Amino acid sequence: MFFASDNTSGVPRQILDAITQANEGAAPGYGADPIMEAVRDQLRDVFEAPEAEVFLVATGTAANALALATLTPPWGAIYCHPLSHIEVDECGAPEFYTNGAKLTLVPGADGKIAPEALADTLAASGRGVVHSVQPGALSLTNLTECGTRYSSDEIATLSKIARAHGLPVHLDGARFANALVAEGCSPAEMSWRAGVDALSLGGTKNGLMGVEAVILFDPARAWEFQLRRKRAGHLWSKHRFLSAQMHAWLENGLWRALASHANYMAARLESAIASETSRVYPRGGNMLFVRLSRAQHERLQAAGAQYFTSEEPPSGSGARDASTVARLVCSWNTTAEEIDAFATVLSGA
Amino acid sequence: MFFASDNTSGVPRQILDAITQANEGAAPGYGADPIMEAVRDQLRDVFEAPEAEVFLVATGTAANALALATLTPPWGAIYCHPLSHIEVDECGAPEFYTNGAKLTLVPGADGKIAPEALADTLAASGRGVVHSVQPGALSLTNLTECGTRYSSDEIATLSKIARAHGLPVHLDGARFANALVAEGCSPAEMSWRAGVDALSLGGTKNGLMGVEAVILFDPARAWEFQLRRKRAGHLWSKHRFLSAQMHAWLENGLWRALASHANYMAARLESAIASETSRVYPRGGNMLFVRLSRAQHERLQAAGAQYFTSEEPPSGSGARDASTVARLVCSWNTTAEEIDAFATVLSGA
Amino acid sequence: MFFASDNTSGVPRQILDAITQANEGAAPGYGADPIMEAVRDQLRDVFEAPEAEVFLVATGTAANALALATLTPPWGAIYCHPLSHIEVDECGAPEFYTNGAKLTLVPGADGKIAPEALADTLAASGRGVVHSVQPGALSLTNLTECGTRYSSDEIATLSKIARAHGLPVHLDGARFANALVAEGCSPAEMSWRAGVDALSLGGTKNGLMGVEAVILFDPARAWEFQLRRKRAGHLWSKHRFLSAQMHAWLENGLWRALASHANYMAARLESAIASETSRVYPRGGNMLFVRLSRAQHERLQAAGAQYFTSEEPPSGSGARDASTVARLVCSWNTTAEEIDAFATVLSGA
Amino acid sequence: MFFASDNTSGVPRQILDAITQANEGAAPGYGADPIMEAVRDQLRDVFEAPEAEVFLVATGTAANALALATLTPPWGAIYCHPLSHIEVDECGAPEFYTNGAKLTLVPGADGKIAPEALADTLAASGRGVVHSVQPGALSLTNLTECGTRYSSDEIATLSKIARAHGLPVHLDGARFANALVAEGCSPAEMSWRAGVDALSLGGTKNGLMGVEAVILFDPARAWEFQLRRKRAGHLWSKHRFLSAQMHAWLENGLWRALASHANYMAARLESAIASETSRVYPRGGNMLFVRLSRAQHERLQAAGAQYFTSEEPPSGSGARDASTVARLVCSWNTTAEEIDAFATVLSGA
Repeated sequence: MFFASDNTSGVPRQILDAITQANEGAAPGYGADPIMEAVRDQLRDVFEAPEAEVFLVATGTAANALALATLTPPWGAIYCHPLSHIEVDECGAPEFYTNGAKLTLVPGADGKIAPEALADTLAASGRGVVHSVQPGALSLTNLTECGTRYSSDEIATLSKIARAHGLPVHLDGARFANALVAEGCSPAEMSWRAGVDALSLGGTKNGLMGVEAVILFDPARAWEFQLRRKRAGHLWSKHRFLSAQMHAWLENGLWRALASHANYMAARLESAIASETSRVYPRGGNMLFVRLSRAQHERLQAAGAQYFTSEEPPSGSGARDASTVARLVCSWNTTAEEIDAFATVLSGA
Repeated sequence: MFFASDNTSGVPRQILDAITQANEGAAPGYGADPIMEAVRDQLRDVFEAPEAEVFLVATGTAANALALATLTPPWGAIYCHPLSHIEVDECGAPEFYTNGAKLTLVPGADGKIAPEALADTLAASGRGVVHSVQPGALSLTNLTECGTRYSSDEIATLSKIARAHGLPVHLDGARFANALVAEGCSPAEMSWRAGVDALSLGGTKNGLMGVEAVILFDPARAWEFQLRRKRAGHLWSKHRFLSAQMHAWLENGLWRALASHANYMAARLESAIASETSRVYPRGGNMLFVRLSRAQHERLQAAGAQYFTSEEPPSGSGARDASTVARLVCSWNTTAEEIDAFATVLSGA
Repeated sequence: MFFASDNTSGVPRQILDAITQANEGAAPGYGADPIMEAVRDQLRDVFEAPEAEVFLVATGTAANALALATLTPPWGAIYCHPLSHIEVDECGAPEFYTNGAKLTLVPGADGKIAPEALADTLAASGRGVVHSVQPGALSLTNLTECGTRYSSDEIATLSKIARAHGLPVHLDGARFANALVAEGCSPAEMSWRAGVDALSLGGTKNGLMGVEAVILFDPARAWEFQLRRKRAGHLWSKHRFLSAQMHAWLENGLWRALASHANYMAARLESAIASETSRVYPRGGNMLFVRLSRAQHERLQAAGAQYFTSEEPPSGSGARDASTVARLVCSWNTTAEEIDAFATVLSGA
Repeated sequence: MFFASDNTSGVPRQILDAITQANEGAAPGYGADPIMEAVRDQLRDVFEAPEAEVFLVATGTAANALALATLTPPWGAIYCHPLSHIEVDECGAPEFYTNGAKLTLVPGADGKIAPEALADTLAASGRGVVHSVQPGALSLTNLTECGTRYSSDEIATLSKIARAHGLPVHLDGARFANALVAEGCSPAEMSWRAGVDALSLGGTKNGLMGVEAVILFDPARAWEFQLRRKRAGHLWSKHRFLSAQMHAWLENGLWRALASHANYMAARLESAIASETSRVYPRGGNMLFVRLSRAQHERLQAAGAQYFTSEEPPSGSGARDASTVARLVCSWNTTAEEIDAFATVLSGA
């Protein structure tokens, strides 16, 4: 009963096979391997973006911070949600990589930036006033840290506000695949067609060992990105092992299949426990937040169920009582048996 | 005939097996996996350093830059050789990670810092003068970029000079294993017993996909290191895949066996071509620099041999003519057949 | 009718005289001038802090950012009020100087951090969690940007909370003199006795051309501060011109006399317009915020009165309507005539 | 007998008068004062550069570091002489301001970069290779730290090499006025006509309290410069006191008169001691380096003469013996009496 995170899972067989296969023979390093050529083609095709530049790194924090540093000057403001990963969980990586940009928090319910809050914040941004940091970039997350989902239209609405102020848009897509299959739209619709300039496309939480793609839909700053990546120690010499994983993940839609499974399991879990728990946020993909009674929580702990909790729901959700809020994350390899067992223990039946 | 770099090779079967095995089941992330516990024990044991703290990252540049940033303040001077990897091949990573420390170049023959040059430089370092950057750290490389080797005594001599000026010592050990087996000493002798405070222990060039250990023999700043690693996006969520590789590499001395093979192949190569080429630097391990005639070079290129060249030998070696200097690197999986073929083509027989 | 800022005023005659006198003869540079010796003694005496180290810089932003960088690591959180100068008016200087620390906003009415808000924020700070920035420093401002004042006890209360979490305390004292004379306490009571580790003591807004003292009550990091100052280009070669101003300012209590005048003029202004305006914040010293009707505002503008406005009061004050909020700052050379003229125009009499 | 530095002198009466005059009345802050308007016009006129943007800061280190950070990305190489002020005397300010650019040393006799050395260095710069820092900017100094002078033609030759590699050119003109009047050319000839993009025009060493102008001949990045200046705490609120000094300095050619005096005194000094000392570098302006015998040095010290020495001449000058090399700097207010006294003591007559 592992619901702590989708990064506590390993990788599917196809990924191991791809690594084994890529291991044969010698290969040029630093991204010049032929598999990376294929990955580039795959991503350009999948995203209907023949001009896009594509780079791989091993962690989501690296992907986000490098993308943001490429989009934002040191004196820039990065507009993000108070609960966003870049604000809460990266130990200041965006500040480090940008050399001191300011994360400016824009609120909204359910982990999503409210368009009017963004508009208000930008209207008061101090552009052109030398005493103020200057508008730098908008950074969204999909799925959000609350497990909710922006629709493509919602992304487009926020991007439009940002663009009206001259801002580029970054999308932290650590769980982009989960959002995509839940939304049922095309990758292009959820990214550049919705105004996204740079996407951190997460593989790690969806079945890879540690591979994330950064897609720059505007290739103008691709060389700068490459220098930043190298300078940060994120350019792999044996790059083929990143390429091979990403290639296998994209091939035949494996990435979507893995995400669909995780989402489906989350739906099943939600359904299985709906009558006995209350939902904190609407579920957008493979992650749910529910309020458990103390008794439920204690039974689950005793049975070895793994998940993170907070005594109170994260800000913005309203209610607070003596109950526990549990974050339950399903993965590409979560089983129906795990879910059934969890639901059984929870119910105390 | 792949002699371009030891990072164009893949990994041995044991590493793939270890990854496959580590893939089973769920595992806590971010270095809390049980395999990492074992790796820590292995390295403490191998280095006879029960207090040492050990961390894994995926690239050598990350290992070096994070270690140096932990040892050196932003206003520090990092003393290194003009040909060192941190000066020449990391796109300014040490400057980025330290927030602007100054790499101060200390010359010496064959890629090795000369003790008297270090002493002279430190004597003129401006310690206590507010207009000068302040002595920060000494950084050595073993094997050096010239393929030469510091003996443990030579490291100790340099460390002693550094310590007399209050400086900590970093060792870039991207090819530490190759140096170690060539020197025939213990890991402790080539590191902390010789005055090294922080070691970048390279796995990638010696049979891993992308795994390097940073060993802090003085654990006082281990927490700072961890924060720097996270903040740089070098802390893996699915950390077990780094741990598993390092574990298998250390187990039963595989790391030494792989390095011994590479060194042995380099010796064989050196021997096979000795009569027809001239050596640029004394060979310290698995890498040699030889001067080729134009005809030799052209034959080898035509036959598909892969290696890097420079029209002139890197500075410090003296001679220069119309010949080509070739860098020939042997790897854990270089074969005798490759070497024989290379020698045959070179000789034009 | 100049009420825009206390930095639109020049300097009193004593300061010009001191500069003229200091100009005689040659003097050693970079802070080694004899006047600086005297300034150090003055400040140690005034603050009853014989161990304190004292440094001069030319701007308040430099004083704040250098002090904070000395107290806080790059991965630190700096707790400050949302309206604080370091957050709003320094174009990200603290982030630049610290190499990316995170300004974490702690609310409170009237521009003052609320103790319970600080306690709550620190309780949730994530100390020891590698994914979070780590508690770095508390930064207070007195007078605040709202013109309000912390009492020494209030500072001590906040410092105590900070210290319980191991945090050092910085005080942005751009208007420390105004706060001090209004509070009627000793400099020690409003600084180190209240738990302050580093004080930016502002001279510029209170009669100097551009001189601020940074006082480190704990001298342990004084050398680091000096290196940071030099490295930032804030160490003056002809330092005597900073020293001379600070010396004259401190001599015979001139600094207190200037601040008292400014405060007194603000009190007179407040009194003169009290019946016709409403106060936005309680006045702590030489600065008041009042709500003006449109008609009042237009009359004042037509008469050439200078002050900054906001359509709404800054966040936290509650009310909003069609009126204008005016910030009115009195200076060491504000005259009763200006105030009377202002009041007359405002009243429309 | 003060020959330690031109920054141990005070300022001429005109500067004090200008400050006194500027002190009258209120003035808008942060560079919006009317005197700054006049300064901008003066400098555009003097430099025949109607498009140039002009900014003032208080120190030469700030001028250099801000200019270089505006010209160079963090991964840039700044080509400079090994003895340059930015390399030797700024405690790493360029590295701090650029967020880690690399100062790459280009040798040459007498403190001047040799054109062939620059060409060689740039030819090997690694442009387009992701492992290397990328060419960023050329930084020259005139007068040099050796007291020598680049002619306008020499600057143009070096700039042309830099431009052929796409590099902008910075000129550290801490002693630009001294170089200018010695060379007898126009300010334009020694700056933008010779290929200079950004000039640090030093006032402090030539009669101001602490005022330097940064002139951006290409105004494209002026807004970036302003943000960097503010963010570094180098934007003065009471900016009029910088403006007034610069204005008076430029008015009626005072700056040239002061520099001419200093140069003339240096020529007199050189002449007075020529027969009894040997010159280390050719004199370019107001500064000379001479070799003193021990006896001479001891007599001068006993008589209270002030100057800096080195046991050996700085690298590049060749000779070394038991003698002392003295740096003798004349200032705008050096007197003939001081020189005669110095010569008399030196001669032991």
